[in-house]
Amino acid sequence: MRLALGIEYDGTDFLGWQRLSHGRTVQQVLEAALGKVAHAPIEVTCAGRTDSGVHALQQVVHFDTEAERSDYGWMMGCNSLLPRAAAVRWVRPVEGEFHARYSATSRRYRYRILNRPARPGLQARFLTWERRPLDAIAMHQAAQAVVGENDFSAFRTAACQAPHARRRMIAITVERQGEEVRIDVEANAFLHHMVRNLVGSLLPIGRGERPVEWMAELLAGRDRSVAGPTAPAEGLCFIGPRYPDRFGIPEPTP
Amino acid sequence: MRLALGIEYDGTDFLGWQRLSHGRTVQQVLEAALGKVAHAPIEVTCAGRTDSGVHALQQVVHFDTEAERSDYGWMMGCNSLLPRAAAVRWVRPVEGEFHARYSATSRRYRYRILNRPARPGLQARFLTWERRPLDAIAMHQAAQAVVGENDFSAFRTAACQAPHARRRMIAITVERQGEEVRIDVEANAFLHHMVRNLVGSLLPIGRGERPVEWMAELLAGRDRSVAGPTAPAEGLCFIGPRYPDRFGIPEPTP
Repeated sequence: MRLALGIEYDGTDFLGWQRLSHGRTVQQVLEAALGKVAHAPIEVTCAGRTDSGVHALQQVVHFDTEAERSDYGWMMGCNSLLPRAAAVRWVRPVEGEFHARYSATSRRYRYRILNRPARPGLQARFLTWERRPLDAIAMHQAAQAVVGENDFSAFRTAACQAPHARRRMIAITVERQGEEVRIDVEANAFLHHMVRNLVGSLLPIGRGERPVEWMAELLAGRDRSVAGPTAPAEGLCFIGPRYPDRFGIPEPTP
Repeated sequence: MRLALGIEYDGTDFLGWQRLSHGRTVQQVLEAALGKVAHAPIEVTCAGRTDSGVHALQQVVHFDTEAERSDYGWMMGCNSLLPRAAAVRWVRPVEGEFHARYSATSRRYRYRILNRPARPGLQARFLTWERRPLDAIAMHQAAQAVVGENDFSAFRTAACQAPHARRRMIAITVERQGEEVRIDVEANAFLHHMVRNLVGSLLPIGRGERPVEWMAELLAGRDRSVAGPTAPAEGLCFIGPRYPDRFGIPEPTP
């Protein structure tokens, strides 16, 4: 039987998603919890791996099991075993052809920047800090250059293992809400560090150090070494994947 | 010279505001940071002490010092010395008659409840969890019974040291935003545990275990022992005090 599951986490105290031999990861604590509930080892496949320090509002995974538990039993059992910074939102049976990674049609991320003279204290875990005033309108205009199907070589990390760098950027918006600048991104899929690298190049534009046209130049140049630095992990949250309606996967509201 | 200062903090890893001989408190780390910036011991007076685990968007303090630093220098100096979970938002000189506690005309708090079957993971530090469905409209109606000048004996903790229990409740609203129920409270001043005790009595009303009229009965009865239990600290955030405009104290937006 195949089950799907939505999980949210505060990534601060995890070494990212993927199971590691050293240190605590989300995949590891989730598989350990599921294994206890099932009384049998369980391996999960996720929609999109997140890096160390990156958060998720709804990561989606699938797994196969012979264990018979109610959806509610799976959820409550896992949540009583998971550390406080991670919680299963829901569990439900899915058809055998559902695949958390390959069935996803797009992924959404949000990047939050606190833009004021004082660094964050209350929500420091979830915010990147920029003390110089940002022009969110210029950042939004610049970002539109990457919408559509493009080669994102300028925004992938050297360690990225994807066979090619073409991705379809569905939407990217930059919006100010008081002291906070939010960047919402949706693409069919993402390269390693792609969101953080896009944000790292939008920041100099927001500070007025680069013109709005710089983003288009970087994209066309396909050269990672001339783009901005990788923005910090803490401002990044994986909002979640989208799937065709027929799978009945709930979508979170950021 | 008298200075005022706004500070925000994630209360999770502090034993509350007030200086203690054992364990880390916000007052202690702030006084230590200010003392280093001033090269002299500094004692601060706050608008309202918060309990262990309670957060603040803007606590306000005043202190007196001979040290001459720019407002920006005070802020940046403190923030480089404070732990990550606390940050000074601003520092500014105030007239000698300003008193963080006695000049405040009111205080605002927000209490956040995550109301869904799954416990919180991503924002677990800032949310209290209630899995049974809450009727926020009934809670709002019930809460209106405490608006105005009243004796809040039913909602004060036994340890409360205030000489009397009369407080002026300026406004209390209960509102649902998706999976979250938010309770916003403003009063001239609060008794010890007053917000958490008000919330603890609104919860059974929200769950339908008590009628809307129960809140008025509890208030009139003045008996702490029959009211609801104290709601957990983690959902509570001190939004901040308000002062007469002439002091020029910035007000935060929740």
